[in-house]
Amino acid sequence: MARLARSILVTGSNRGIGLELVRQLAASSQPPQHIFTTCRDAAGPRGKSLQELAAQHPNIKLIQLADTVNLPSIRGAVQAAETHLEGQGLNLLINNAGVGSQATLQSVGAQEMLATFAVNVVGPLQVAKEFLPLLEKAAKDAGTEGLSCSRAAIINVSSKVGSIGLCLGVLEAPMYPYRASKAAQNMVTRCLAAELRDKGILCAAIHPGWVKTDMGTEQAPMTVERSMQGILEVLGSLSQETCGAFLDWEGNHLPW
Amino acid sequence: MARLARSILVTGSNRGIGLELVRQLAASSQPPQHIFTTCRDAAGPRGKSLQELAAQHPNIKLIQLADTVNLPSIRGAVQAAETHLEGQGLNLLINNAGVGSQATLQSVGAQEMLATFAVNVVGPLQVAKEFLPLLEKAAKDAGTEGLSCSRAAIINVSSKVGSIGLCLGVLEAPMYPYRASKAAQNMVTRCLAAELRDKGILCAAIHPGWVKTDMGTEQAPMTVERSMQGILEVLGSLSQETCGAFLDWEGNHLPW
Repeated sequence: MARLARSILVTGSNRGIGLELVRQLAASSQPPQHIFTTCRDAAGPRGKSLQELAAQHPNIKLIQLADTVNLPSIRGAVQAAETHLEGQGLNLLINNAGVGSQATLQSVGAQEMLATFAVNVVGPLQVAKEFLPLLEKAAKDAGTEGLSCSRAAIINVSSKVGSIGLCLGVLEAPMYPYRASKAAQNMVTRCLAAELRDKGILCAAIHPGWVKTDMGTEQAPMTVERSMQGILEVLGSLSQETCGAFLDWEGNHLPW
Repeated sequence: MARLARSILVTGSNRGIGLELVRQLAASSQPPQHIFTTCRDAAGPRGKSLQELAAQHPNIKLIQLADTVNLPSIRGAVQAAETHLEGQGLNLLINNAGVGSQATLQSVGAQEMLATFAVNVVGPLQVAKEFLPLLEKAAKDAGTEGLSCSRAAIINVSSKVGSIGLCLGVLEAPMYPYRASKAAQNMVTRCLAAELRDKGILCAAIHPGWVKTDMGTEQAPMTVERSMQGILEVLGSLSQETCGAFLDWEGNHLPW
């Protein structure tokens, strides 16, 4: 497989999908020069698996990003990445950090709605905004035309249950805050795609499938390894045709 | 025109679309027995036009609903409506209260995102939840089968710019918080439709068109009178076939 990108940043990469994505990127035959990983407490116990992985792969750089709603926190992460990049841009930003919710119509409240929206919508938008100068730099310096993850891209990890058109299994799994936040995040992805296309930056939403992680639980039918293999193939295939698309881990288009 | 419903509640009805909707309902040949109108400060200067209208139409009842994110505030409004209903249910809830946003990618911040989401998504969901017992009562007592606004319905006033599929004019009117909130609200509408259908309650999202109001500005191509004539016709035509649909003021289906 050709190198996906020279530099990649994955938010929420201390466990689950994010951690496996970083693991596969680091283990690939043509790994990125820089794999920036962020989590709430990179140096603490929550970042343990990531610290172990980074100890084996010097291209993995742990960056502290305590709160994606907090601008100074994001700006600190941008500065840290910038230091490592030594004048080069960032090719690929993967907004993976997110929270779930099991709230039903009976149990849902304002606080859970707002907290889920903050992490799943405001966070990705603000991270994209703050890393935009580095992404623009990568897009400009690439010396290529067209759109791709190897040039410059923002990928938002979304979910099929965030598809308003499908509106899958509401009675079995209401998840009002999660569904509403993912629909809103999909809108942000589409807006960013429209706005950044001419700057050479690709944006897309990806559904990783229902996978066995802390969030997906053991009931999930798919391993996180299989899902991330698929995701990495899909990311490598993205182009101007799939800019602004909502794709699953096998590359199938999903309805909004 | 046949009577749309025996009892109707319209949130944010002190101006713009809400006020005109109440005006046309009150002036119709078969007006509802109860038109409950809510706004932030029903008795104060913001409610002046509504107070004047209510003075002419005794079936209009002004109800205080200061904050749709605040449960005690909504519960006070439910109690006030219940007193007037004297043991009967509420047929039609129109979640019209909402805020706009002109934020661009450059200007958008967490606070505006969260405030817009609170009013446009959390508000309608909580108002629906709290009025649910009255809506269920209306659905049960109707003595009819099928779904309709005359039996029991929740209508969420949405917007075409909240369509992720269309993603209209992002470069000219980015409105990130507004678009994201309306996409999320559409998801809530679909979830409510799935959940409440078997209880005899219809849910749908309606796009009123771009109309000349304080929010729509004078640039808008359509009068609020024309839009509300259309909306009232569409509401009268809703059935199980359009439960969970996203329709414009002419009854056209919009993509999510």
